[in-house]
Amino acid sequence: MARLSVRSSDIRPSPVRDMLNVSQRPGMISFAGGLPSPETFAGLDLPPPPRDLLQYGPTEGEPALRARIARDLAALGLDTEADRVMVLSGSQQGIDLAAKLVVDAGTTLAVESPAYLAALQVFRFYGARFGIIDRSSPGAGWGEAPPSMAYVIPTFQNPSGHCWTADERAAMAAACRASDVILFEDDPYRDLVYEPCERRPACAGMTGGSWIYQGSFSKTVAPGLRLGYLTASPDLFPLLVQLKQAADLHTNRLSQWMVLQYLNDPGRAERMDQVAALYRRKRDAFADALTRHLGNNASWSLPPGGLFFWLTLAEGTDVERLLKRSVERGVLFTPGSHFLAEGGASPTIRLNFSLADPEAAERGLAILAELLDD
Amino acid sequence: MARLSVRSSDIRPSPVRDMLNVSQRPGMISFAGGLPSPETFAGLDLPPPPRDLLQYGPTEGEPALRARIARDLAALGLDTEADRVMVLSGSQQGIDLAAKLVVDAGTTLAVESPAYLAALQVFRFYGARFGIIDRSSPGAGWGEAPPSMAYVIPTFQNPSGHCWTADERAAMAAACRASDVILFEDDPYRDLVYEPCERRPACAGMTGGSWIYQGSFSKTVAPGLRLGYLTASPDLFPLLVQLKQAADLHTNRLSQWMVLQYLNDPGRAERMDQVAALYRRKRDAFADALTRHLGNNASWSLPPGGLFFWLTLAEGTDVERLLKRSVERGVLFTPGSHFLAEGGASPTIRLNFSLADPEAAERGLAILAELLDD
Repeated sequence: MARLSVRSSDIRPSPVRDMLNVSQRPGMISFAGGLPSPETFAGLDLPPPPRDLLQYGPTEGEPALRARIARDLAALGLDTEADRVMVLSGSQQGIDLAAKLVVDAGTTLAVESPAYLAALQVFRFYGARFGIIDRSSPGAGWGEAPPSMAYVIPTFQNPSGHCWTADERAAMAAACRASDVILFEDDPYRDLVYEPCERRPACAGMTGGSWIYQGSFSKTVAPGLRLGYLTASPDLFPLLVQLKQAADLHTNRLSQWMVLQYLNDPGRAERMDQVAALYRRKRDAFADALTRHLGNNASWSLPPGGLFFWLTLAEGTDVERLLKRSVERGVLFTPGSHFLAEGGASPTIRLNFSLADPEAAERGLAILAELLDD
Repeated sequence: MARLSVRSSDIRPSPVRDMLNVSQRPGMISFAGGLPSPETFAGLDLPPPPRDLLQYGPTEGEPALRARIARDLAALGLDTEADRVMVLSGSQQGIDLAAKLVVDAGTTLAVESPAYLAALQVFRFYGARFGIIDRSSPGAGWGEAPPSMAYVIPTFQNPSGHCWTADERAAMAAACRASDVILFEDDPYRDLVYEPCERRPACAGMTGGSWIYQGSFSKTVAPGLRLGYLTASPDLFPLLVQLKQAADLHTNRLSQWMVLQYLNDPGRAERMDQVAALYRRKRDAFADALTRHLGNNASWSLPPGGLFFWLTLAEGTDVERLLKRSVERGVLFTPGSHFLAEGGASPTIRLNFSLADPEAAERGLAILAELLDD
């Protein structure tokens, strides 16, 4: 038998991955993934890219794209510059690089509850243990042994849809600075905004501290290009560049060029408004259908942005059994327990509203209601 | 101060990376990197890609591309199939995934001496220790404590240019099978062939054992697309897929589509012959210039394939001092010591012949000769 690393003994199939396989079955209505609606994707009618992009490129990314991203991030209040922006092969890569940088077996990280499950998986793989962040008092309990890093999605969180207040963001940054905790802010949904709410990055309050801020073009341009970016405090940035170099040398250069064309397109702001309007309509129709079908069986908040509803069902609901029966009926969702760092059962589910068309969403929610009424 | 992982305390700037920065200076003659000649890159005049590639895709890669790669690999003698091929974001990613899978702090790996330096860096980062492979007796010394994995480039090795014989390949596979050692074969240069020599993958002899075989499109299509692939024995393949999913979800889909068009192009075999002919001419001109300028100061073998000459200088040559003076004169190369897992000084250097044009190569080698004569 092959001898593998200790960390590999814990590799398990991702529950989401298995569900995505099920979701490929014809006729399946999937509320499970986080797939954007294809009608939001940027077009492919671009001029031919420059041929010199076919050669190896810089690890940090294309200079013109880095400069453009730095300008946008500085406008959000982040203390950054082009030399401290790195283009990623999708923002999942940023999570892996941050974990490599910070996590040994037994390292404590602070996370939200619920938290993004693919981040929890990566952190666990490197051996992390978890403490839960109390948003109203983020440094509470850190005492003598604070976590090494806090991972948060303050804006339209996955899976809860929650958006942190200005005070919560400031308190999080202050707690991290006070205890030398790295603040790792993941911000892939910030442009999918349906209601006014605070969106200033928490990392904007981290000057003098250690922080990593990352974003993604998967929701605003197209996921198939696998393009994200990060910026970080000066102590961490060069280390992240070297980890990126070891991971894949650099990110696809043609995609970087394409995304730069989209960012520089004068019609971009209008297009993003249309994307947000489209998703707002989908969210509202989904909320309507939820109220009609599940109003007596579940509670939720209207998400002010992002791609998900987070539902709390009756205490004691057997969510795994619900999922099994639901899949038999052709409807897929993600059990909330997968998003809990602390583990254990939970009468919660995450529903994605961006992919299914309104008619399919209606049918899918009616089936869920039937099963819950049983 | 931020608290980082133990492995991160050992992050050092890559010597090659630093040199690549120097190589950007105008007028620099670089023998240091491994950059293909841009005239070998595939064209960009393709029809517009299908729009559905803009959505998230499967972690393993596009089915049509996987099937095509599997067919080519099976023809080389590898025991594989489409379901056991995964597309990578460049073959550097395969090294990172294999290291994650196998290496804990203190894990022993068997490597060649010299060995590919970016692989040594990744293995070191995860905490590997190294044993050196004796090609004439690959399992020698493994005894009670064999390594967990052997990493080899049997075909046109980087940096030595060496090509293993059929017997050496068979002996390597047999030794790995006998001691439950994972054989990790890296094969990015196999199509850059200038002389007849054995190229059957060593992993073709690993049936029943644990193995990973990877290749790259960086040298045969274009590096800027960041596209490689791996196949592995059934025990390891699913684990590598899950590590890839955690690392970047999946590889850029537009690049996968582009590469599939190139692979299916009826003119491809002829184009690859032209690429090999071009590099053969460059190699021969470089060998000529080497003989004229460094014939008295260095020894080398004519590489039967790949992109590098490996030169042995006079015993005791101070290669770091040579490099410093050489950079001042506008010529860059890679010291051989960077390729030695066992560390220590070495009177060896690696020269890339694929990038510099003949006139620049001539000037660069004349400068090296002058410095060595000093």
